[in-house]
Amino acid sequence: MSVQEDYIRWLEGPRKAFVAKARERREKFETSSGCEIPPLALPAPGALAPHGEADYTAKLGFPGEYPFTRGVYPSMYRGRFWTMRQYAGFADAEESNKRYRYLMQQGVTGLSIAFDLPTQIGYDSDHAMALGEVGKVGVPVCSSADMAVLLDGIPLDQASTSMTINSSAACLLAFYLIEADKQNVPWAKLRGTLQNDLLKEFVARGTYIYPPRPSLRLTTDIIEFCAREVPNFNAISISGYHIREAGSTAAQEIAFTLANGLCYVEHAVKRGLDVNDFGKNLSFFFNGHNNLLEEVAKYRAARRLWAKLMRERFSATDEKALMLRFHTQTAGSMLTAQQPENNIVRTALQALAAVLGGTQSLHTNSYDEALALPTEKSVNIALRTQQILAYESGVADTPDPLAGSYLVEQLTDELEAKAEALIAAVDERGGSVGAIEQKFMQGEIARAALQYQRGIERGEQVVVGVNKFQSADEAQPELQGINPEATKRQLKRLSEFKAGRDGALVKKSLAELSDTATGDGNLVPKILAALRSKATLGEVCDTMRAVFGEYRDS
Amino acid sequence: MSVQEDYIRWLEGPRKAFVAKARERREKFETSSGCEIPPLALPAPGALAPHGEADYTAKLGFPGEYPFTRGVYPSMYRGRFWTMRQYAGFADAEESNKRYRYLMQQGVTGLSIAFDLPTQIGYDSDHAMALGEVGKVGVPVCSSADMAVLLDGIPLDQASTSMTINSSAACLLAFYLIEADKQNVPWAKLRGTLQNDLLKEFVARGTYIYPPRPSLRLTTDIIEFCAREVPNFNAISISGYHIREAGSTAAQEIAFTLANGLCYVEHAVKRGLDVNDFGKNLSFFFNGHNNLLEEVAKYRAARRLWAKLMRERFSATDEKALMLRFHTQTAGSMLTAQQPENNIVRTALQALAAVLGGTQSLHTNSYDEALALPTEKSVNIALRTQQILAYESGVADTPDPLAGSYLVEQLTDELEAKAEALIAAVDERGGSVGAIEQKFMQGEIARAALQYQRGIERGEQVVVGVNKFQSADEAQPELQGINPEATKRQLKRLSEFKAGRDGALVKKSLAELSDTATGDGNLVPKILAALRSKATLGEVCDTMRAVFGEYRDS
Repeated sequence: MSVQEDYIRWLEGPRKAFVAKARERREKFETSSGCEIPPLALPAPGALAPHGEADYTAKLGFPGEYPFTRGVYPSMYRGRFWTMRQYAGFADAEESNKRYRYLMQQGVTGLSIAFDLPTQIGYDSDHAMALGEVGKVGVPVCSSADMAVLLDGIPLDQASTSMTINSSAACLLAFYLIEADKQNVPWAKLRGTLQNDLLKEFVARGTYIYPPRPSLRLTTDIIEFCAREVPNFNAISISGYHIREAGSTAAQEIAFTLANGLCYVEHAVKRGLDVNDFGKNLSFFFNGHNNLLEEVAKYRAARRLWAKLMRERFSATDEKALMLRFHTQTAGSMLTAQQPENNIVRTALQALAAVLGGTQSLHTNSYDEALALPTEKSVNIALRTQQILAYESGVADTPDPLAGSYLVEQLTDELEAKAEALIAAVDERGGSVGAIEQKFMQGEIARAALQYQRGIERGEQVVVGVNKFQSADEAQPELQGINPEATKRQLKRLSEFKAGRDGALVKKSLAELSDTATGDGNLVPKILAALRSKATLGEVCDTMRAVFGEYRDS
Repeated sequence: MSVQEDYIRWLEGPRKAFVAKARERREKFETSSGCEIPPLALPAPGALAPHGEADYTAKLGFPGEYPFTRGVYPSMYRGRFWTMRQYAGFADAEESNKRYRYLMQQGVTGLSIAFDLPTQIGYDSDHAMALGEVGKVGVPVCSSADMAVLLDGIPLDQASTSMTINSSAACLLAFYLIEADKQNVPWAKLRGTLQNDLLKEFVARGTYIYPPRPSLRLTTDIIEFCAREVPNFNAISISGYHIREAGSTAAQEIAFTLANGLCYVEHAVKRGLDVNDFGKNLSFFFNGHNNLLEEVAKYRAARRLWAKLMRERFSATDEKALMLRFHTQTAGSMLTAQQPENNIVRTALQALAAVLGGTQSLHTNSYDEALALPTEKSVNIALRTQQILAYESGVADTPDPLAGSYLVEQLTDELEAKAEALIAAVDERGGSVGAIEQKFMQGEIARAALQYQRGIERGEQVVVGVNKFQSADEAQPELQGINPEATKRQLKRLSEFKAGRDGALVKKSLAELSDTATGDGNLVPKILAALRSKATLGEVCDTMRAVFGEYRDS
């Protein structure tokens, strides 16, 4: 079948069916000059793709079809734009709730919750380890009472909520389910994403509690639980973001992220789960970095490679289990404290790459994030950046608009090959757990980070405003502060929560959790039961800490 | 010859020769992942371009070779970045000079002078017609004394200076030459651009003095003069910018700009000039608009079409006379007064398109330009935008990086075809002058502008912050004011200049100018002589006004 014939098949078949359900934004997409923007741009009849005709279908194919190089849905943003999701959370539940309401009013289409460090590593706000950290990098959530305030006025049957939480992910999922019950929203209607990716914590990010193996057990428990009980919630967001932030290259970002993904899939399959089932609940999270065209190629290569790996290694057949769907956040590490408004430009270009690369959702950093948590003003500009890309730039009017570009296709092929080679190296070390234990990934990333730093020091890599084009006098923008009243409010709510509960009931539910942790069985229902009985996040994590031990980096 | 063989020819031939003279920025260009960015991305061996093999050479070819679709120089920005040129001028010569020095310190690589309205339409600052307009939208320059202050401390053998001046262009060129003589810089060493494009004033911009036919005579005089006397100065910048600002489509922007270009070439050829000679002194000026990929296609289509027209209509053979070299300014009309920081995003995307499209120089608008003249802060961010594109985004590392993209190639072909059809329609009306007199261009543009406005009113065209995502409360940024002292200083310098000259000499030189205007012969040497004898810009223009009459739009 020629590419043209295949196009007709796709146009009249899968695309038509998709568009019948998910209407496109316009009847006809065209430029100011009246050039029609086609449902899919293709090589002209009789002429071939950069790869040659036989390769077109194998390497590029059609959006919504294996190998998904050109996107996961047949009409991509001609139907619905990506989810505009601004990661936020600070001070306490009240202030964070206020920010979410502000963001929704400004047009965000998805929530994204940032938690403070104590919450991330399983300590309540009143714990000694939490001192000075409460509400600093995100919102503290220790109890179902905090979650109720945090989600106040947000209808969970309509929201799509991303929670950046890993070691204590099961607790936050449970709080969310408790809140859904209060709102009488069936769990099957909940949409969102739990980060729940422990492996990358060991590789790059560092907010782990338990050692790798019990951590993996918990992750798998959540995947299993969601596949059964919360089927439209992404049980995991396999994250390259932090790997890239730690200084990796684009190829390493693809490779180590997908290698970790393979590890999660293996564990779930060993648990007896069906890859075609839980495979639909896996999502990914990438970093929107500086090199515009390499980034576009990165997203395309990652999609193609994941589909291939899922098919070849696990015999996945369901299209939804083969699709790599991903969230993107623009690169925080590429922001500069100097001349902060320049970050608006960086973020716009990084976000553009993510859109050209077919992201499913996007967080654009605020220009002051190298200095502090974003203000309403700065987060507004960040969101407007996404809206300008969506509504004004025209790049959302056809799927995979750079397909065919000699350079982008070459980079896509090359990044895929480099990532495959790195995955093979991880395989040789027994997969991700072995590679992490042998510090293979960490070493590769450190080497890349060092090379980048040396480039900056030598001036070969210019960072505008930092090692070239510096300014002598800079006015600092107005920064977001933490209201000290918020911390007091948080501690007060926690102590009232603890005072108002049945201590024996809490004890009993934690003991049952401890038993399951010591033995086997899925931990999520036990965690849910404990939190329902008004245990706190810190108490649940302490209980598991006692059984699993704590991980210390050597 | 296959594309691959042709590539080797290009690589070892023209590219090698070019790079030997104009070294590239690095020995090797690569991404963080170690993917090498090639000197030119091409279809993989054995596979074909979007157009089919026979078409590759005809439609795309190689950078620096006919038809120049992939750029005018063999290594493009791998050697030198585009000229970063921020259009500026306000208050008076002192304050503008201060701004130029600030910009040079911040890293601009080319000057760009904005003149006030009286200067543009040939009135001195002390004329009744100038009241309230002196120094408002640009700098007033009435005499060689003003120019001396304006260029103080700027070595003209190193600067590349663009002057946005049309009806009174010959005066400003003359002032510049007088200043060069004072600095002992030979005219052959002067680099820069005179806008000098009267036809587009009648089509769109409106700052004309004389009727079309004497205006064209003056333009041709300047082209002839420069070809002979100032060989490295672009005698004209044939401008689509204002045509687009008036609301044209991208196709109209190409078509009417190139049609005007053809008209200038015809006049110069009729004058007996050699197209291979003056053809090198023609440059173009386009608008960096919103639709990212259509814009990239626009620049490529314009280059290909101009080369073809010059070859087919005028038998031009010199490569430099076939090349369309252009300056880009981001679209002022697309900036919004609402939420002005959003303009940083718009400008970044518009600038990106210009770079992906191979611009030779670039002005990025400042975010507050919908409200006032830019401040130092806002112009700094605009310049940093260019520097981030150049140094951080990677898009400058290979020529024409989107070549091959199915969509971009399709849009390039389509815009070229649409522009050719419009040029044929202009030809039917006797070329640009006839088409302007019959209001053909004006009517086409007005129709497109109306359609765009209706799209906004109906909400089909979203302008972020204007008809969607509005904000209730907006803090106005700090704006650039006009120092009233500057106007006083300007008037004082002018009256001192007039007091300190030999009135009889001025009279005599103006009489000689009048004679030449009434008869024939190149006007530029007469204008130069008059201004050397200390006539003012207003007096020179008045002299020609008396002979040529003034144009009034019906």
